[in-house]
Amino acid sequence: MIPVEARISVSRFRDAQIDMAHGAGGKASRRLVEGLFAPLLMGANAGPLADAAHININDAQIAITADSFVVHPLRFPGGSIGELAVNGTVNDLAVSGARAKFLLATFVIEAGLPTPILEAEVRAMADAASRAGVAFAGGDTKVVEHGKADGMYITTAGIGVPLPHLSLSPMSVRAGDQVILSGPVGDHGITILLARGDLDFEADLKSDTRSVLPLVEALAHAAGSGVRWMRDPTRGGVATSLNELARDCGMSVHLQEDRIPVRDSVRGACELLGLDPLHIANEGQFLAVVARESAGAALEALREIPGGEDSANIGEIREQPEAAVLGSTSFGGTRIIDMLVGDPLPRIC
Amino acid sequence: MIPVEARISVSRFRDAQIDMAHGAGGKASRRLVEGLFAPLLMGANAGPLADAAHININDAQIAITADSFVVHPLRFPGGSIGELAVNGTVNDLAVSGARAKFLLATFVIEAGLPTPILEAEVRAMADAASRAGVAFAGGDTKVVEHGKADGMYITTAGIGVPLPHLSLSPMSVRAGDQVILSGPVGDHGITILLARGDLDFEADLKSDTRSVLPLVEALAHAAGSGVRWMRDPTRGGVATSLNELARDCGMSVHLQEDRIPVRDSVRGACELLGLDPLHIANEGQFLAVVARESAGAALEALREIPGGEDSANIGEIREQPEAAVLGSTSFGGTRIIDMLVGDPLPRIC
Repeated sequence: MIPVEARISVSRFRDAQIDMAHGAGGKASRRLVEGLFAPLLMGANAGPLADAAHININDAQIAITADSFVVHPLRFPGGSIGELAVNGTVNDLAVSGARAKFLLATFVIEAGLPTPILEAEVRAMADAASRAGVAFAGGDTKVVEHGKADGMYITTAGIGVPLPHLSLSPMSVRAGDQVILSGPVGDHGITILLARGDLDFEADLKSDTRSVLPLVEALAHAAGSGVRWMRDPTRGGVATSLNELARDCGMSVHLQEDRIPVRDSVRGACELLGLDPLHIANEGQFLAVVARESAGAALEALREIPGGEDSANIGEIREQPEAAVLGSTSFGGTRIIDMLVGDPLPRIC
Repeated sequence: MIPVEARISVSRFRDAQIDMAHGAGGKASRRLVEGLFAPLLMGANAGPLADAAHININDAQIAITADSFVVHPLRFPGGSIGELAVNGTVNDLAVSGARAKFLLATFVIEAGLPTPILEAEVRAMADAASRAGVAFAGGDTKVVEHGKADGMYITTAGIGVPLPHLSLSPMSVRAGDQVILSGPVGDHGITILLARGDLDFEADLKSDTRSVLPLVEALAHAAGSGVRWMRDPTRGGVATSLNELARDCGMSVHLQEDRIPVRDSVRGACELLGLDPLHIANEGQFLAVVARESAGAALEALREIPGGEDSANIGEIREQPEAAVLGSTSFGGTRIIDMLVGDPLPRIC
């Protein structure tokens, strides 16, 4: 056995301490994963720690994923931590091209939490699992002293089976491919912000948390192997997911910004705060890159599914410039859209 | 779709709030799991949420488990939270009769945590995984404000393959079966207690954290289908695990207490604190119930494995009394050994 110290002699993560930004899904998160977690846990040749991994075990192909949820507050318009914990894991599997079958759930609860608060979340999980067609197979509970878990943290692991006819990879993306988005962006992140009451702004807005599996299945059925890549733009938003794609495939993503659905209330809150809606987290949307010849059928199929009516073709892949995301509007002018930097909206999932 | 409220009309968990005891692995934990988590998440007919579940997916049998780790302090003689997070999940699979193949790891880290502390735990996880022969397949990181995660919490999910020739269930246990224990009890729990410095007592003691898979495999090889049941006696200790067995199989476990290996320092600390070593958590031991005719070969096989030298036959299963654990010493006299009540040593894993 080779000791880890010999295998991995240098960690490339140079930040002296962990800050909120390392959990925000943007540049700092990527530094932490690629500079510390991936090289130490997955070896020198590892890519980034994937949200869902497809593995072969006992001659079967399965997909696995795990996420911890620390959203604050625990409940918010349109959802709660329990619902998020189920949908988030179902969605990580869905955009990897898999249908969730089993979930494991672990709870870190702080002493003194009233039972009705816990019970509400367990019921929310059961309901979300029922809607997503997934079964709980086990779990674990730990209790820590009052104040040391902000109510509760929930971790879910998901085990799923690959959907047929899909082979997703940034390496499959080609110039001319179209970028499809399943619905309006930023609802979840801005809902959490408003639920905290820190902002003197009211809006009739709710989280978009839901299982995207029905939409993903409709897309896969309509476009089959024409689907190249999918991602759910949670922390860091659409801009961060597409920058990761651009970097991984070495091409550029050209967005027609006025085709990207954004609700007025989300746009208003973002203007007030100096944020870009494309950096705001979503919990019920996904991005897909689809071959040009499949894009029309894909969009049509998505729009026929309840909840997919606002799906839009928001742009395309081009050879140049390398590894960038660009946005144009119908007024003309093009801007570079970067990944999220810092953590303007902490603990949104 | 039937709403959960209709399916499960009554939660049987009556405690008004969550307390430390609900995370201790004893009676209160069992109430929480059986009265709230299991009926809501797994349906009215569910048994307790198992530590590891064996499921069929894509025509393959696999075993899955997940645990959160909140041990305090993060490092202690003989181990650390990272090592525990790997070994604990490998062991949950092992005693379910499965060999861990893949792990997922999620981190909840508090802002301000010095990077070297995180890096040390990630390295500890990599080392433990290497020793246990298991690979990391993915993960997730969340960051919460300073003070809200006591350094860090780690959750690991494990996916494994069933070991051949094993069919484990409390229902398979028969009167006359023998109870085998892999080594001395209480080292882990007392080590954590001493590491906190709350106790004016010093001892040359370290956590027993390790993968028990080599021992489990040796036992399975020697006794095959003669192995009826296994469990790693973590929170709640040997007494709690055996009480759960007694309840589940409806028979009694008769222990010869002077055959149970307990180090002098563990016994001393327990006497000082008024605790029973059989209630103290272990992180590198397991219990097995083995058919009488296989017990000799099983014990011999275990003792030949490095780290199995102290394995002992500590008692047997009898028909009467129903659902109880009894302890006898060579001085005569028999006592009832109950499950852990309360949480005398919180956050030991």
